[in-house]
Amino acid sequence: MPERSLVFPPEEFRDRTRRLQAAMAESGLDALLLTTPADIFYVTGFLTRFWESPTRPWFVVVPASGDPIAVIPAIGADLMGRTWLGDIRTWVSPAPEDDGVSLLAGTLRDTVAEGGRIGLPMGRETHLRMPLADHARVAAAIGARCFVEGTAPLHRVREVKSAREVAAIREACAIAGRAFDRVPEIAAAGVPLDAVFRRFQAVLLEEGADWVSYLAGGAGPGGYGDVISPAEPRALSQGDVLMLDTGAVRQGYFCDFDRNYSIGRADDASRRAHAALFEATEAALDALRPGMEAREAHDVMHRSLLSAGQTPLGGRLGHGLGIALTEWPSLTDWDATPLREGMVLTLEPGVEIAPGRIMVHEENLVLRADGAELLSPRAPAELPVVGQ
Amino acid sequence: MPERSLVFPPEEFRDRTRRLQAAMAESGLDALLLTTPADIFYVTGFLTRFWESPTRPWFVVVPASGDPIAVIPAIGADLMGRTWLGDIRTWVSPAPEDDGVSLLAGTLRDTVAEGGRIGLPMGRETHLRMPLADHARVAAAIGARCFVEGTAPLHRVREVKSAREVAAIREACAIAGRAFDRVPEIAAAGVPLDAVFRRFQAVLLEEGADWVSYLAGGAGPGGYGDVISPAEPRALSQGDVLMLDTGAVRQGYFCDFDRNYSIGRADDASRRAHAALFEATEAALDALRPGMEAREAHDVMHRSLLSAGQTPLGGRLGHGLGIALTEWPSLTDWDATPLREGMVLTLEPGVEIAPGRIMVHEENLVLRADGAELLSPRAPAELPVVGQ
Repeated sequence: MPERSLVFPPEEFRDRTRRLQAAMAESGLDALLLTTPADIFYVTGFLTRFWESPTRPWFVVVPASGDPIAVIPAIGADLMGRTWLGDIRTWVSPAPEDDGVSLLAGTLRDTVAEGGRIGLPMGRETHLRMPLADHARVAAAIGARCFVEGTAPLHRVREVKSAREVAAIREACAIAGRAFDRVPEIAAAGVPLDAVFRRFQAVLLEEGADWVSYLAGGAGPGGYGDVISPAEPRALSQGDVLMLDTGAVRQGYFCDFDRNYSIGRADDASRRAHAALFEATEAALDALRPGMEAREAHDVMHRSLLSAGQTPLGGRLGHGLGIALTEWPSLTDWDATPLREGMVLTLEPGVEIAPGRIMVHEENLVLRADGAELLSPRAPAELPVVGQ
Repeated sequence: MPERSLVFPPEEFRDRTRRLQAAMAESGLDALLLTTPADIFYVTGFLTRFWESPTRPWFVVVPASGDPIAVIPAIGADLMGRTWLGDIRTWVSPAPEDDGVSLLAGTLRDTVAEGGRIGLPMGRETHLRMPLADHARVAAAIGARCFVEGTAPLHRVREVKSAREVAAIREACAIAGRAFDRVPEIAAAGVPLDAVFRRFQAVLLEEGADWVSYLAGGAGPGGYGDVISPAEPRALSQGDVLMLDTGAVRQGYFCDFDRNYSIGRADDASRRAHAALFEATEAALDALRPGMEAREAHDVMHRSLLSAGQTPLGGRLGHGLGIALTEWPSLTDWDATPLREGMVLTLEPGVEIAPGRIMVHEENLVLRADGAELLSPRAPAELPVVGQ
């Protein structure tokens, strides 16, 4: 008998399912169809890096009541069989003509009465992880049932993290914190940036990350050009600001925070920018309360940066965090999503120091009834110097 | 002026685009809309791990002639600006109401005449990486133009690798080969499997991987249960067969091959299984020629395993490889895709040694006019023993 392979005990997933079903009922949904790694992991505990293979579609149907049903390629039967799900329907995928279409359609017909509404996440920050042509075939094969927008119940449930989820994210943050403490071991003038990236990922693994799904960063004199580039082989130089931004994964949960370092002595503009970013984060940490809107958190940071004489970056200054590197809500000037107790958020203010030279700063927190509780070890107030 | 950030010189991407446009013309497509990391990297050279964030959609439009147009979130403008593309249209994403929809629809209207057909990959092994509701909005906003199935031209072009692509995959394979040579340093009885996974990923990075997007495997007495599970903390024992299967990435290209090891002396059944898998792979390496169908490669391995008295696993026994961990075609009993010179393929025979105990074996190759050329260093014929 193979061991169970759940990150958390079955009651965690049962509770998530019950909360989801309550939200589905409020939205008038008779079932919810999930297709993405994060959504399926959330409900089942099915954790695998095999999602990296885009070949096969995977489905989980959450009925209005009762346990979810997995409709998956046979290659996943063993692993899904070790989750809490009892009803697992498989086909050999890839298949020449019918790659799970009739099995899924049959499951939806079994689960939802005629006239029923099947929720499918179609809104912002979602996508459908199956061939579009097969989606049309399923829609045609479910008779007098229809697919309707199902994003809201899923997002409203997933955005409030359980105690176990918070603990997993806290552990991922602690791992990354220990790795950031070791950056002086690996970064110095003359070391190529791509070597720093490779060694930092190895350090994250040494410190306990299960895997490193995300590492980005930059380095340049007095700031860097962007925050999403992979590393180039250019060597670090005295006066560079180096930024590393990690999504290390532990038990299927991400951290997402960054740190800045000056290679040798920093110039005044870099130090002022770092201090302003630290203060803007501090202001948001002080201000955050359940019931605020996401945009108010943005505004706190934005105002703080302006009052420090800085040029804030456009776009969002933070976001949700959990099973995915970035989740909703968005700390932008428009997102009116109410902040709720139990949300895990990033604060990510950024400034333009000079044209083409930016600096960003990021922390992770969980929102409690009385305010923010940090999950990432707090960055130093002053820009740290390494490699001197 | 920021440096160029292309994995390959611009002529590589120009040539890909011209080949794609020729295939589009044959299929009667007036444009092709790309939304996934692999497809967008293929045409532009835009390489980033930022795809890990599901928040924002990204688009590239390949017109019937002329250069591709990027329609992307502003956060990617700097990096896309370092590719060969000249026409880069951006919006600040995420956006409250119109998250790139009108910018994309306007670009499609600019690019395609009324009555035109816009290809979108909708077939097997594809998905649409944008919110489904926004896809419907774009479809409604492009006037007398329509989206049609666009998988075939894309797949027929991507499946034949250029010399530069083969070199990148060969390098990823060499990195993993050196890492596999070091498994005796990290695996032994008493070492927990999850520690082996962490250390193996660090070794891959030390040997030159840019990142490790995939590692799966298993360990168990005389075989393992499945090949997609993450590692559990159970310690390795004498008599376990350990399998590690990696997708290490170098310059945006994957290797995908595995190796088996016996922890201490192997039992006869494990050794016979390994020898049969080696021989089945050898038979396919000898037999492969351009013009064969994918299913013939499957049949060669399947027959070899049967004649060795083994029980072959169902499903596919190999697949395409390149920008994604798994690509088409599938070496199954039904895939009639013609094998072509320049395809990069995996051979991945597997057997069931006993109920719930399997063994798989994998190599990577490029198909030349005169047959298979290995890209992975060949596995040893006999199951290697470690930790004795």
